[in-house]
Order: sequence, then structure tokens, then C-alpha cells
Amino acid sequence: MAAIKWEGVFPAVTTKFHANEELDHAEMEKHFSFMIDSGCHGLVTCGSLGEASTLSFEEKLAVAKTAVKVANGRVPVLANVSETRTANAERYVQEARDLGVDGFMVMPSVLYAADAFEAKANLRTIAKAAKLPIMVYNNPVTYKVDLTPADFKELSDCEELEAIKESTDNIRRVTDLRNAVGDRYAIFMGVDDLSFEGLAVGADGLLAGLVVAFPKETVALYKLVKAGRLAEALKLYQWFMPLLHLDVSSKLVQNLKLVEALVGAGNENVRRPRQPLRGADREFVVQVVQQALATRPDVSAYL
Amino acid sequence: MAAIKWEGVFPAVTTKFHANEELDHAEMEKHFSFMIDSGCHGLVTCGSLGEASTLSFEEKLAVAKTAVKVANGRVPVLANVSETRTANAERYVQEARDLGVDGFMVMPSVLYAADAFEAKANLRTIAKAAKLPIMVYNNPVTYKVDLTPADFKELSDCEELEAIKESTDNIRRVTDLRNAVGDRYAIFMGVDDLSFEGLAVGADGLLAGLVVAFPKETVALYKLVKAGRLAEALKLYQWFMPLLHLDVSSKLVQNLKLVEALVGAGNENVRRPRQPLRGADREFVVQVVQQALATRPDVSAYL
Amino acid sequence: MAAIKWEGVFPAVTTKFHANEELDHAEMEKHFSFMIDSGCHGLVTCGSLGEASTLSFEEKLAVAKTAVKVANGRVPVLANVSETRTANAERYVQEARDLGVDGFMVMPSVLYAADAFEAKANLRTIAKAAKLPIMVYNNPVTYKVDLTPADFKELSDCEELEAIKESTDNIRRVTDLRNAVGDRYAIFMGVDDLSFEGLAVGADGLLAGLVVAFPKETVALYKLVKAGRLAEALKLYQWFMPLLHLDVSSKLVQNLKLVEALVGAGNENVRRPRQPLRGADREFVVQVVQQALATRPDVSAYL
Amino acid sequence: MAAIKWEGVFPAVTTKFHANEELDHAEMEKHFSFMIDSGCHGLVTCGSLGEASTLSFEEKLAVAKTAVKVANGRVPVLANVSETRTANAERYVQEARDLGVDGFMVMPSVLYAADAFEAKANLRTIAKAAKLPIMVYNNPVTYKVDLTPADFKELSDCEELEAIKESTDNIRRVTDLRNAVGDRYAIFMGVDDLSFEGLAVGADGLLAGLVVAFPKETVALYKLVKAGRLAEALKLYQWFMPLLHLDVSSKLVQNLKLVEALVGAGNENVRRPRQPLRGADREFVVQVVQQALATRPDVSAYL
Repeated sequence: MAAIKWEGVFPAVTTKFHANEELDHAEMEKHFSFMIDSGCHGLVTCGSLGEASTLSFEEKLAVAKTAVKVANGRVPVLANVSETRTANAERYVQEARDLGVDGFMVMPSVLYAADAFEAKANLRTIAKAAKLPIMVYNNPVTYKVDLTPADFKELSDCEELEAIKESTDNIRRVTDLRNAVGDRYAIFMGVDDLSFEGLAVGADGLLAGLVVAFPKETVALYKLVKAGRLAEALKLYQWFMPLLHLDVSSKLVQNLKLVEALVGAGNENVRRPRQPLRGADREFVVQVVQQALATRPDVSAYL
Repeated sequence: MAAIKWEGVFPAVTTKFHANEELDHAEMEKHFSFMIDSGCHGLVTCGSLGEASTLSFEEKLAVAKTAVKVANGRVPVLANVSETRTANAERYVQEARDLGVDGFMVMPSVLYAADAFEAKANLRTIAKAAKLPIMVYNNPVTYKVDLTPADFKELSDCEELEAIKESTDNIRRVTDLRNAVGDRYAIFMGVDDLSFEGLAVGADGLLAGLVVAFPKETVALYKLVKAGRLAEALKLYQWFMPLLHLDVSSKLVQNLKLVEALVGAGNENVRRPRQPLRGADREFVVQVVQQALATRPDVSAYL
Repeated sequence: MAAIKWEGVFPAVTTKFHANEELDHAEMEKHFSFMIDSGCHGLVTCGSLGEASTLSFEEKLAVAKTAVKVANGRVPVLANVSETRTANAERYVQEARDLGVDGFMVMPSVLYAADAFEAKANLRTIAKAAKLPIMVYNNPVTYKVDLTPADFKELSDCEELEAIKESTDNIRRVTDLRNAVGDRYAIFMGVDDLSFEGLAVGADGLLAGLVVAFPKETVALYKLVKAGRLAEALKLYQWFMPLLHLDVSSKLVQNLKLVEALVGAGNENVRRPRQPLRGADREFVVQVVQQALATRPDVSAYL
Repeated sequence: MAAIKWEGVFPAVTTKFHANEELDHAEMEKHFSFMIDSGCHGLVTCGSLGEASTLSFEEKLAVAKTAVKVANGRVPVLANVSETRTANAERYVQEARDLGVDGFMVMPSVLYAADAFEAKANLRTIAKAAKLPIMVYNNPVTYKVDLTPADFKELSDCEELEAIKESTDNIRRVTDLRNAVGDRYAIFMGVDDLSFEGLAVGADGLLAGLVVAFPKETVALYKLVKAGRLAEALKLYQWFMPLLHLDVSSKLVQNLKLVEALVGAGNENVRRPRQPLRGADREFVVQVVQQALATRPDVSAYL
């Protein structure tokens, strides 16, 4: 089991489509390169932001394969595991490992609101099949399953589980986790508009969204906080905040794909039932991006 | 497009598995027959209670096929459409129609919390492909998408949409629907422990859960309310209520499969990440069933 | 302890003010008479709808006194007890009893979200001081304290507690209460737009809101359901529903005072921080009332 | 209008009672002195933690008077305004100003869930009567009224409103407020277990709870973050966290009074319907305090 350095900024990349909803691997290659070249420290494919719910088993593997090819060992590639049946998840991690991913992000249970006992059993089963490092993606807001610090303490003996993506929307959880399990797990903040706070209370990295359009600013934020340059980091964060809020929305995919399109880092193609933003929702995002670009700070000195 | 008589009791049947998680068609044939022979007026396959989230595209078709075979024209068979991608849902309804289902139950959007615009577009697209009568399954509690009476009014021109499964957990919605759209749609109450109230305010039928173990009592409840015999219906409902509550739970599948097992109408096999009930959850259900059986009313006169 | 006949329609009357926010006893006398003359079976003063939170201890007693004078033994008068300190509640019930009220409506705890142990102790203390029949007002939605059927079972030995105002917004609770405590308590439905459903599942009466402007329709609804004339009752209820929804709102006071004003049964004066409705909120209520008046059924035959 | 220096740690002090529920001014004098002598920068009387809901108008003034006497100009005293009727709030601020308080904490609306228009009108009316600096206490979680950054921008011309107690439980709000209104208002974090995060994103001070038992640790936390000594601050915060969680509970009063009793800074007397903690709730707090005392850091170097 190769080591993953659990720190820095890992983008939960968007999945790129042609207008006819087919996968656009060329566009993904371009975008994954953009992430790595901008200083990101890892890639996570087919997460919530990657429209996992509309992708087939095979498509998810294909996207992971493209990411592995682009990364080429420069940064670790994590394939998100979003199968709704345990047996399928076991098969998924085996096939993904065979094509070269470095690890996995695993949701405790998708669609079915498993209780903690079931969710932990599910994680252990997947971990055993994966034989690779895993970041557990704990998101009770969207997926209705919450693993508490006590649950993660109980899972400590499951060695594949190395990191936690903290998406409870409850910043206190980082401190409660540290108090419960110390440094047993790396902690990544999974909520964009809690990223400064998360790093301030000791998170090791960011599992980020807006990074898909603003990678350098995200990396700069990470580096400034880690360097203890709080005042500069806070100023950057205040500028970034209206954009970061776009990640916390049932329309996060469409929001971020529109942001990508507006900054030249992608297009708005999504798979139905999702549709691109319309009307006031769209105007709001356009206005946020225009305002951000008009006041964009120069972060080159921080990288 | 053949006609469906939208009234009576339609069970959302459980999907039967062998101990190794494989589909158990023999057990399903037996159970579907039990439903029809007990007086039920339709069958709905692979809904929430049918563990749709763990079934493959092909498995869902196979279950529908078994139901069609068992029903053999005696009652309509509706296949639930739970595809998370619109394009897959289109393909699903086409294939299911080809194997002989009478209509569909359709969720406005699964996993992705679509807004009303997207959900309505999704429904229209699926309806167009289905070319069969459709019951829209509106369940904002579990699926986070709520189509309001105004939305259903807007959808009135989509003629395949003939019925609504009301699962908002808000009994007022039946009256609001009637006020908004009159009798344009048949209304089925989709929440077991609101079934008496739903029928009292004019619902046409029940899309029921506990019926899988207590079909005669469910049919009797329906008939008594429809006959205006409120006092008798209420007495039956009061007896039934502790059982009916078991349908409103994140563990409804396990609850109802245990109830089935306890009354000799099935087994507890589920697909992971679901697991059979344990500990206090299990004891509670056992106690509810024992109490119900000890005081079970004779409903033969009402059938 | 004189008997109260716990059935029928008990209005939670509005408190009338002059434009300068002072109590308008003349207007209250007129309105309380209107309620009784229209067939209501009781009066409840200074509840949520009566702006209890803005009234002093002495003012609440003064309103109760006016109600006692107007009722003059024709119907029972219940004074609502909304003191936030237990010791004040004890003093309040003693003084109200001395001026002749027939009983009390008591909230388990106001402002402080007491747990069940504290809420029950509070009720017992108040009951002991009251020495008169009490209706417990269970409203977890607004007041964050929920007494369950098990709690009411535990309180069964406290004989002053004779009735329950069911305002959990959960219609199942009526049946759960019957199953837990039989007919130990009278049950009044406290949510206007669940009144038909509440009576259908066996509630004894209505603790009603819109009755302040439409008393005859409310009494007719009660009588029709109790007479088993469901179809006629449902038709009346469907007409009534848009009005009844106005009772379930943080602006219920302003909504209902505007309705009163529009039908000639009161004015819109409220005490700050409340203000009369403005803008779209106001137009909506006006439109609902106009529509209701334009289609108002003749209920004289049902009274 | 004398100036208040809006920075540092302001305890929301508990109100002390004798066993018979009467005010215990001697105990309050002792406790208020303890706060000031330990380095706190202000005092706030009769807030949520001060059991405002059980205190009479006169009692609240009496507590404020005691605080003014003890403070004797060393730190500002803010009287919390919790009147449920606007007219009473006007009278309250006038009488409190006459007895020498330095300013007020004002809740936008208590008990009635005012909309933003009403809440802002209420604040303006109270501010006009107060003629003293005001901290607006924005707590939608408990009081159901939420003033947004846009609302505070709209209130910018109301010069008495100088500070905001941020109790939305949403740490992002601090940054959103800065982006909307810059430094127009001082911002105090009002949620104990968000205090480190709040200070990190630029809050000016803490409106604190656990400070009533651990004042030096609270002041040290404030000073360390303000001095940019993040690592030391975080270590202290991690130690403090289990205690700080006790402030976020419907039982915060009883929790903190038990903590006070355990560390020798008060007693557990509360006013009914509140009752001292029992059973598991009590054991939990005792265990948290024992653990905290056993590992208590020496903060003397930071003060």
C-alpha cells in the first residue's frame, strides 16, 4: 500500500461532458493538468461535484483512468466510491486499484441512510477490498449518515482508513475529532466556505470545490494559513467568500461549472436531470464572478 | 395506452433475496400472489421499500417481469422508475413497457435534489418515453424534491401523468391538491400511518407498505372508509397504527421484512449496506407484531 | 371543581386593542358575544392568538374577567396560562379562579424549552394551585416542549388535567394518544387546517382560530363530522382550507385580525413588535378572504 | 453617549438566587467582582444565561444596579433588554440608563418571531429610547429572528447600534458581515464553542458563557488569538472545548451553574420551571469538569 501525503489542496474535480452528455476525456485531461500545474496536491474523481449519481460504473472507472494518466505520479489520484450497493463498491475498488489509482474517497452509505453500525460495516468491507489508503467522506447534510468522533475512534484499527473529509458543516467537529482521536486520521475540510476556519483549527488539507476555477487562490489560502500568516490569509478569504458560498448549494455542480466557464476553465454541460442555471440563479453567479474578477488579488507571491 | 383503475390498495412490494443477496423470484411469485389473492388492486415493484437503490437496471426489469407474470392481467403492475440519470430512465420505461407492465411510478428526481423546473422536465421526458399511465411519487422527505399543487397544475397537459402518490407527510396536501386541480389526478396516500386520514379527505387509494404482511386488514380499512363506516374504520386503524408507524422510518425495509417474517409472509434477507434489525430496534418490532397478533381483529366481514 | 363539557368549538379569541395599544374591552365584549351567539361552546382568552406575550399579568386577568362577564355561564371560559416563571403561574391561576373562570389552558413551559420532567412538574404545580379543570396546550412547534402520549399517561393521576390541545402538527398523535390513554383526556385539535382530520380520527372538539371570523362555518364543520356526514363536511372543509392555512404562520395574529377586519368582526390593531400586514403578505390574505366570501356556502341548515 | 471599548471578553453573567428563588445580590456582587478581577472587559446582565425569562422588570433593573455598583467604572455594564412588548422595552432602557448602565444588549424580538421589518423597527424604537450604545443580540436559533448582513447594512444609520453579538451558530456570518458592512459594527462571538474560530476570522471580542467559571482561560484564549499565537491558542481551545460545548444546550443555565458550583464560583439554584440537572445529564457535566480540572493548563503567562 503506497503512501499518500495527506496535506494540501485536493480538488474534487468536475466531470466534463460533451453537449450530448457523453464523457469528454480531452477536456478532462486539460482540466486535470490545469489543477496539477497550478499547485494542487491531489485529485479526487467523481465525487458529488463530479456528478457521480449520473455516471455508470464503467464511466467512473474511465474518468479515474484519465486522471491517473494525467497525474502520472505527480500527485495522488483518489477515486470516489459512490456505489449504493456494498457488493458493487467492493468490485469498484478492485477494478480501480487495478487501473492504478492511489487511493479512494469513500462515502459511508449513499442513498440509504444507514445507521452507524451499518455504515461502519460498509466501510470496513470496502476497505478490505480496496487495499489502498482511504479518505472517509462524512457528509450527513447531503447523505444523512453521520459518523461521529466516537465512531472514528472505533474504526481506528481499520488501517486503510487514513483520512477524513469533514463535511458535517459543523466546524467544531474538527476539534472534537482531534480530542477524540488525535492525529490518527488526517483531516481535510470538505466545505469550501469553512476552509479558513478548518485550517485554523488544524485541518491538514482542503478537499475543495472552487479550486476547479481558482486553483492558485485556493493553494495560496492553504499556504498562508499553514505559514501562520493569518492576516493575509483572512484578507484573501474575505475576497474569496462569495465564490466559496457557491459550493454549498443543491446546485453546486451547475454553479461551479458556470464559474469554470466564465473563467475559461470548462463548460456548462451537465447530465439531466441537472440543467444549467437559469434566470436569477444564473445572474447571481455571473455577478459574483464578475465582482471577484474585478477585485482579484495577486497571489503569485504566496505560491 | 390501456386504462388503469386508480383506486384501492396498491402494495409497494418488497424485493425478495436469497441469503447470498441474489434475487429470489420464486419467493416473489409467492408473495405477489398473496397480495392479489388477498384483494389488493395493483402491484408496484422496486420502490423505496423494494430496495431500488441496490438493484441493477436489469434486476429491476426482471422483478417487473415476474410481477407481470403473476398478475396475469388480474391487477395492473406499475414499475417504479428510480434511475438517477434521465437518459437511463427513458431507456428503462421503454424496456419495461416492452415486457408488459401497465404503467409506472416515477420519482421526480433521485439522489439529485432537482428544483421544480428540472423535476418537471424530467417527468415530461420520462412520460414521453413511457407512453403508459404514470403515478408521480412525490416524496420530499426522503428525496428532497417537492412538487406543489401549483406544479401539478402546470403539468396537467402531460396526459400520461394520471396519479399522484402523496408522500409529503403533510395531510393538508390532499385538500390543497383537490382545491388546485380537482380530480385531474387520482391521489394515492403514500404514508401508511396517514392512510385513514388520507382516505377521509378523499384520496382514491393507498400506496401501502404494511399491506405486504397484513393485506386483508389494509383492504378492509380502505373499504370501510370508502363505505362511510368511519367508526369501524377508526377502530381498525387504531389497532393497526403501531404497525403502520413502522413504515415511516429510515429502516422501513428491515422493519417490514421482519414483520413479513414474523407473520410467515417472507424473510429478512436484505442487500448491504442494509442489515437486518438488531437489538432494541428488533425487539421493538417483535413486540409490536406480537401485540398486534394478540389483538388482531376479524376483518372477513368487511372484504 | 365545576364540570366542563369538553366538546364542540372553543375559539382562542383575539385580544382587542385601541390604536394606542391599550385594551379595548368594549370591542372584546362585542366579539365574545358574537362567538357565543354563533354557537361556539367555550372561550379561551389570551392564548398565542391573543398576543399573550405582550400582555401584563393584570391585563390577562382583565381580559379573562371580561370574558366571564360576557359568557355569564352560557359557555365555559378558560384563561390561558402563559407565565414564564412557575411561581407567577401559581399566582395567576389563583387570581383568575377568584374572578370566576371555569378552567385553564396551560402551556407546559413558555420561552424556556423545559424537558419533559420539568414540564410535567410545572403542570402539576400549576394544577395544584388552580383547583379547576385544565386543558394542556401541547405545542412543540412554537414552544419547543413536547409531551408525548407516554408523558400524558404518566400524568393521568393529576385529576385537574382533563383535556389536551393537540398542536404538534402531527395528526397521528391523536390516534397515538387514544391508544396510550384511551378517553382519559378529552382531545381538542389545536391546528385549524387539521381540524377535519382531527375530528375524523376522534377528537372531541376544536380549539380554533379562524372561528373568530367564521364561527358558523367552524361550528357547522364540527357538527357535520360528528354527525357522520363526511361528504358534506369535506366539501365545506375544502372551501375553508385557504382561510384555515392562515392560522399556521408566525403571522397568525396579524392574518386573523385582518380577516376579522375584512368580515366586520374586528380591527387590525396589534401590539408592537407586531405590526399589521404589509405588501404581498397583506394582498395574499385579502385575496384569500375575497375568494372565500365570493364562494361562501350557506351553512344555516347544519347549525 | 459615553464610549464603550468593544473588545475583549464580556461575560453574560448568571443571575444568583437563594434556595427560595429570591435574588441573591451578595452572591452576585462576589461573582461580578470575580469576573472583573480575573481580567474580563465588560459585564452583561440578565441575558439568556441570566434566566431573563423568569425575572420581573424590577428584578432585571436591580441586577443591573448591582453590576453597576460592582463595576464602578472599571468595565462597562450592559443590561440585556428582553422585554416581549416594545413599549416595555422603551421604559426599561430609560430606567436602566437612569441607574447608570453603560449600554445595552438588545434582542430583536423575544417570543414573537418578528420578521426583519418588524425586528428592525423594534430595534430602532428601543435605540431611540436608550440613547446609549447597543449590542444587537442576533440569535435565530433560540429566538427565531435572524437579521442578515443586509439588514445590518440597512441599520447602519442608527448610531446607537454599535456592536453585534453573533449567535447564528454559523461561523461564516462573521466574514459575510465584514464583507457587507466592514468595521461599521464591532462583532462579538456569542457562541462559546465557536470562539477560537470567531476570533480567527476577525471578531473583536467574546460574549462568553463558560467564562463565568473559567475567566482566566477565556481571557487567555482571547489574548493568544489576538496576539497571533495560534498554536498555543488552539491547544488551550482543545482543552476547553468539552466545557464550551455545555454553553450550546437548552440546559445551558443548569449546565453552567453546575460548573460554577463545582469550581467554587456559585451555586445551582435556578428558578422554576428550570430545575437543577439530574441523572445522566448531571453525571456528564461532572465528568467533563473533573477531566478539565485534571488537565487544566496554567495560563498565567498569557494574562
